[in-house]
Amino acid sequence: MWLHLQMRKAWKKLPAILTSLLVACAAFVASAPSDVELDEKAKVNHRLDSLNILLYTILLSLTVLTIWSFKHRRIRFLHETGLAVIYGLIVGAIIRYSYTSSEVSHLSVIPASGSGSQGGLNLTVPPDSLWLLLKKGPATLPKNKTYAYVFKGEISDSESKQIEQKATFDPEIFFNILLPPIIFNAGYSLKRKYFFRNLGTIFTLAFIGTTVSSVVIGAVLYGFVQVFGTSSEFSFLDTFYFGALISATDPVTILAIFNDLHVDVNLYALVFGESVLNDAVAIVLSSAIQNYGEKFSGENSGGFNFAAFSQSIGVFAWTFSSSFAIGGAMGCATAMLTKFTHVRDFPLLETALFVLMSYSTFLIAEVADLTGIVAVLFCGICQAHYTYNNLSRDSRLRTKQLFELLNFLAENFIFCYIGVSMFTFPKHHFDTVFIFAAFVAIIVGRAANVYPLSFLLNLGRKNKISWNFQHVLFFSGLRGAIAFALAIRNTLSEARQTLLTTTSVIVIVTVIVCGGSTTQLLSWFNIPVGVDDEAECMQIHMRSMYTPLDGNPKPDGSSADPYVEGGPPKPQDKALLARWWQNFDGRYMKPLLTHSRPTLLETMPVFCTPIARLLTTTEQLTQERVEPINTLSGDPTFAHFEGQDVRRLFP
Amino acid sequence: MWLHLQMRKAWKKLPAILTSLLVACAAFVASAPSDVELDEKAKVNHRLDSLNILLYTILLSLTVLTIWSFKHRRIRFLHETGLAVIYGLIVGAIIRYSYTSSEVSHLSVIPASGSGSQGGLNLTVPPDSLWLLLKKGPATLPKNKTYAYVFKGEISDSESKQIEQKATFDPEIFFNILLPPIIFNAGYSLKRKYFFRNLGTIFTLAFIGTTVSSVVIGAVLYGFVQVFGTSSEFSFLDTFYFGALISATDPVTILAIFNDLHVDVNLYALVFGESVLNDAVAIVLSSAIQNYGEKFSGENSGGFNFAAFSQSIGVFAWTFSSSFAIGGAMGCATAMLTKFTHVRDFPLLETALFVLMSYSTFLIAEVADLTGIVAVLFCGICQAHYTYNNLSRDSRLRTKQLFELLNFLAENFIFCYIGVSMFTFPKHHFDTVFIFAAFVAIIVGRAANVYPLSFLLNLGRKNKISWNFQHVLFFSGLRGAIAFALAIRNTLSEARQTLLTTTSVIVIVTVIVCGGSTTQLLSWFNIPVGVDDEAECMQIHMRSMYTPLDGNPKPDGSSADPYVEGGPPKPQDKALLARWWQNFDGRYMKPLLTHSRPTLLETMPVFCTPIARLLTTTEQLTQERVEPINTLSGDPTFAHFEGQDVRRLFP
Repeated sequence: MWLHLQMRKAWKKLPAILTSLLVACAAFVASAPSDVELDEKAKVNHRLDSLNILLYTILLSLTVLTIWSFKHRRIRFLHETGLAVIYGLIVGAIIRYSYTSSEVSHLSVIPASGSGSQGGLNLTVPPDSLWLLLKKGPATLPKNKTYAYVFKGEISDSESKQIEQKATFDPEIFFNILLPPIIFNAGYSLKRKYFFRNLGTIFTLAFIGTTVSSVVIGAVLYGFVQVFGTSSEFSFLDTFYFGALISATDPVTILAIFNDLHVDVNLYALVFGESVLNDAVAIVLSSAIQNYGEKFSGENSGGFNFAAFSQSIGVFAWTFSSSFAIGGAMGCATAMLTKFTHVRDFPLLETALFVLMSYSTFLIAEVADLTGIVAVLFCGICQAHYTYNNLSRDSRLRTKQLFELLNFLAENFIFCYIGVSMFTFPKHHFDTVFIFAAFVAIIVGRAANVYPLSFLLNLGRKNKISWNFQHVLFFSGLRGAIAFALAIRNTLSEARQTLLTTTSVIVIVTVIVCGGSTTQLLSWFNIPVGVDDEAECMQIHMRSMYTPLDGNPKPDGSSADPYVEGGPPKPQDKALLARWWQNFDGRYMKPLLTHSRPTLLETMPVFCTPIARLLTTTEQLTQERVEPINTLSGDPTFAHFEGQDVRRLFP
Repeated sequence: MWLHLQMRKAWKKLPAILTSLLVACAAFVASAPSDVELDEKAKVNHRLDSLNILLYTILLSLTVLTIWSFKHRRIRFLHETGLAVIYGLIVGAIIRYSYTSSEVSHLSVIPASGSGSQGGLNLTVPPDSLWLLLKKGPATLPKNKTYAYVFKGEISDSESKQIEQKATFDPEIFFNILLPPIIFNAGYSLKRKYFFRNLGTIFTLAFIGTTVSSVVIGAVLYGFVQVFGTSSEFSFLDTFYFGALISATDPVTILAIFNDLHVDVNLYALVFGESVLNDAVAIVLSSAIQNYGEKFSGENSGGFNFAAFSQSIGVFAWTFSSSFAIGGAMGCATAMLTKFTHVRDFPLLETALFVLMSYSTFLIAEVADLTGIVAVLFCGICQAHYTYNNLSRDSRLRTKQLFELLNFLAENFIFCYIGVSMFTFPKHHFDTVFIFAAFVAIIVGRAANVYPLSFLLNLGRKNKISWNFQHVLFFSGLRGAIAFALAIRNTLSEARQTLLTTTSVIVIVTVIVCGGSTTQLLSWFNIPVGVDDEAECMQIHMRSMYTPLDGNPKPDGSSADPYVEGGPPKPQDKALLARWWQNFDGRYMKPLLTHSRPTLLETMPVFCTPIARLLTTTEQLTQERVEPINTLSGDPTFAHFEGQDVRRLFP
């Protein structure tokens, strides 16, 4: 009834909506400055945290490497723990005497004696820490002491004062502890074969699609807000920011179901690739929007600032590409380490190194003010593509199982937390209109993402994306961990609190409703299920029609990655990009980073021979480490660690 | 030179020392009340943290179990993530509306305007949080807001204000995150065979020995402090507390070396068992001492309060025994779960459940104000002894490898941190005299622990503890993670800061010096190395002279735990306690908790048959799940996950 009234009001106001929409799309409006500065503050703190953890991660990696070299050389005079301590001492000294952290604002306070004057206070944001001065403190407290208190948050209502203490976590935990393993595992267990086949489509959906849906959602919401009005102020930048963060679709639920049902592999690739990449895109996009806000916070005129706009596009490109670069670089670094050292003789150390390097990838990116999620995603892909082949069998199992477990626990924890925080998190701000509007917006946005793009893509694709596939793509737009983590990151302003609440509601509803109905949907749209891609891959493997670069067919199936990568190159189902990449990869990357043939000696031009020899291991020349089994275990996604697979790994 | 002077002064004061020692031993002196209350405060916060994490751990376990049952029944209408969310919502609602956390003290403050009056402030400890009131705040900050700030610590000097932000962790992390995996792994990878053989000796060394060394260290230190005087006040209770926490010897370094060298198995068992158990004892002891201090804090007279003393002995007994009980109970609970559910069909879920149950053991104990370390230690032993046999092969590998890795990372992290914190931790307080005294004290204390007890034990033991073994025991008293974690837990008073600094120095020195010289020591004392206990065990296994309870020799080596437990019972090398336990264990515990024969139907009296049948699985009756391989893999310590072992697990 209430809704009906609202609708009728809306109908009268239709012209107003349209105009406001036009205005909105034409002109960005800056978000409130204090809001932006709070973002800044949160960001700085986050980078400090990351730097801190990174420090220890690097320390540990160092220790691991040295332990290995000690074991390798049978050095006994100093033991690993002693080593750890010594490294610690060195780094501690360095920190102590060299490195100066960014200035931390503080405010000296005294116990409030009834009403108090607030002399000498000029802040735009609450200080990071308060110092309680007890110059002439009460008899019960020691004199002349200063106690430090760090910023916790705002106290919204009397009730929250108790609840604030309960069952709420520091949002940093999501970003520094819970997300990395999830995203890394996504990359590490990526079915690269089909991912590369549909590379073009996936990238289009992820990059263009996410941007489109962000804008659409932002615009629709902004329109609603203008018309119905909400309790808290929303600039278009706010709604656009919301559009960006809510555009991050969550692969977890859908893919778990797809896995159970062995759904059509190409559909799987599309959904997986899109949802993984658009997480990354959404994160970068939202940070770019914030950046725009900051650049723009000076002047509050509603005008569209082209300089700031183009600059934040620059920020987007820079952030994404350099995060990508860091991820790739660290992945390759790990591959080099595992290839050229013999750390594989000690699987425990090897695994530890692998984990630490991967985690530090995330931290490095965060410290460099880039996007750790993107970095760790591509790091995961590299690790699976190169490093995995260098690992000892034991470590292959370990790493796979470890990240499988971490991923499982982290995901379920986040979903539990989303549920719990609906009640316990003190900074919720319910706004029925806004929530309703948000639902409408995300549906419109998702549609505007999937259907038009699929139409355009079908013009280019050999095997079209059928209508049913498009519908499934549309419905598989669940929201999950990333959106929530982005939303909970800053809840200092009321607008942000509304965004958090809305996000939580959306996540809960989509996960339960869409997640629950997926199985039905698949049967309605009669999507082919029960497809076994492994069988397909086996066939490919049997008729090994792949002809290596030196012309003659390979002696053995050494380094199966041609198959892994996409089976025999079938022009009709491989993107141009993919084909070019496979060629380059097979010629230079794999020989450099793994023990696979052909070696660089064969692929590099003659004048580089000395370097090539340097970068070629004896294992590589005498294919001692490559068993035919590699052809399957080479791709992590084929090792499910059910009985038979494990046996395949351990004949 | 300076020392020399000190010594001469000391010599003059010798009578004084002796008398003061006598006084000290005769009479406890209460620690400063504020100190005690700060302990209390820290404890409460710790319990809140634990409760918080426990909540989510339980939630996750629930989710895992339900996911399993859904998969088991092929239920699809609701997916696991949806499930997690729903559970979250329910629990959130419960917390929100039922559970009230312990009152949290707060103090409203206003920005200091020069000097301020401190009306209406009566605290004995700094408040948990400050609320910065901005009633008529400056124009730049939103009006009528209250920002919450939580207690960080004391600001000792101007310099620390910056450094405090850097490279220092919340001590809670040590207790809630880093220690549990280390201790659990110690229990999980315990060489139970030799542990049980030397049960009596180990318990004597751990319980009596640790207490003796604590008292001795406390007394010696107190004497020193009385004579030379220190910058900060130390009551005997303080020094005794220090004696307790520093008596926790660290197994890590020594055992790693022992493992490399395959040192004599009985010596290994002694060192390992002693150092693992005395960690537990030291923790409980120190908390008992604190408890004494609290009980005693009222009257400050130097008199010896027998009531409080006997009561804190009671506390010790209660804490230890009930922690032990919780650990055992949870271990058995996991065993039951894994025995009677079919969760083993999904190794990932099984592993997750295993991890969560084990971790919640720690948390439950902490929440109940008991000692999580003790609980998780015995939980680990139970898991290895019972649950391990029920796990799927995959999960056996997973759990072993996971905890091996976590243990490795956590240990090295702590040692790195000890190094780093020497420089970065803001609350160090160096006191050369005290540190020197402490070194003397721990040497004396260790000697007073090892030699007299070994002498007494040798009166009872068949195979004596040789002098060389005793020397190694003496030298293997490195200090490590536990001591540090205990010391860093509360650094609010200056005395406590001195203790922390001293502990850090002791840890660093002992780890580097003793750890480095162990290999030499072993050769000096010509300790037999290169002993392969596995070979020995294999022999035992070959000549399977074990006669089960039903008289006839076992058909197959099903459930090898008789061997695991201590090989064929050789009276000359098995403690009475051990023999009794093995009998009970074989008759009732194993049949109840694992799939091993003989079943309860055979071992329980006839009138219990219905219950027995209920508790006996079909697997148990049709030995379907027990392969002879179990005889070795049954004991985790035999699976090293080097090539051949893994192959043994996967024939």
